Amino acid sequence: MGGDAAAPERGRRILVAVDEGDESVQALRWCLSTFAPAARGDTVILLYVRPPPPTYSVLDASGYVFADDVTAAIDRYSREVADAVVEKAQKLCTLYGKEEGESDHEMKVEVKVAVGDARTVICHMADKLGADLLVMGSHGYGFFKRALLGSVSDYCLRNASCPVLVVKS
Amino acid sequence: MGGDAAAPERGRRILVAVDEGDESVQALRWCLSTFAPAARGDTVILLYVRPPPPTYSVLDASGYVFADDVTAAIDRYSREVADAVVEKAQKLCTLYGKEEGESDHEMKVEVKVAVGDARTVICHMADKLGADLLVMGSHGYGFFKRALLGSVSDYCLRNASCPVLVVKS
Repeated sequence: MGGDAAAPERGRRILVAVDEGDESVQALRWCLSTFAPAARGDTVILLYVRPPPPTYSVLDASGYVFADDVTAAIDRYSREVADAVVEKAQKLCTLYGKEEGESDHEMKVEVKVAVGDARTVICHMADKLGADLLVMGSHGYGFFKRALLGSVSDYCLRNASCPVLVVKS
Repeated sequence: MGGDAAAPERGRRILVAVDEGDESVQALRWCLSTFAPAARGDTVILLYVRPPPPTYSVLDASGYVFADDVTAAIDRYSREVADAVVEKAQKLCTLYGKEEGESDHEMKVEVKVAVGDARTVICHMADKLGADLLVMGSHGYGFFKRALLGSVSDYCLRNASCPVLVVKS
């Protein structure tokens, strides 16, 4: 590396915000095809942010209180979506890892599932995890959250402490 | 590479929008430190966009007509700035290239200087040059153009046909 711009001696830590949308799959795919061939101990951290439990969500603003079994069902569904998204993302990572084949090209994969407002959680996690790069789709974080909150990528571009790579489908 | 996500067989073409600001230097530096160690025939294309000649610029909207020697002086100054920015960027590329040392790690460097509205020219060039990635600073394209036109990076994020990486200082 050159001069004062030296990359960290540890491998790069690439935080990929994944959600249930196709654009996030495109973003992860782009990231893997770009970085996996010369990973050198890099780590891809898959981050999925679940919405907060319904009793604390905007659905509650009207004063409507969910019955316990309803909130439990919503929470369970949210966990299932998280599991499915993460599993799909992990499979994609494995595919790229295996196809490269060489041990020095292996890319470590970590998974984080967090709960909260995707915009703030992603920026917070990028900071906390020491991400060298945040990768995400351009449209935000799932259809419903996008509609409610506006573009997550716009927010992260302004507030994340690391470079942000936005991939469009 | 994995499945339908295969990277192009040719090396990657990374378009870096450079200007006279520190953020663009940061963006180029980040790009080089990230991609130079495993360049594999990649090409970094340095793109500097000069503002249009003053007779066609917003300065002319008031109907004021510049004397020929004034327009010539402005144009000359603009070319000198372009030369200085490009030279600085090329030096940075050479530094990274030399420090890597190995031939298969060499990164080709091309330079393009275009004239026009930075926002539209960058997006057009990304498309025309078949860029796999557009790298730029977050704040736009030089202080004056930024003040006049708003954020160039915002525009490119919405309109460029390739992934966009935004680096903040």
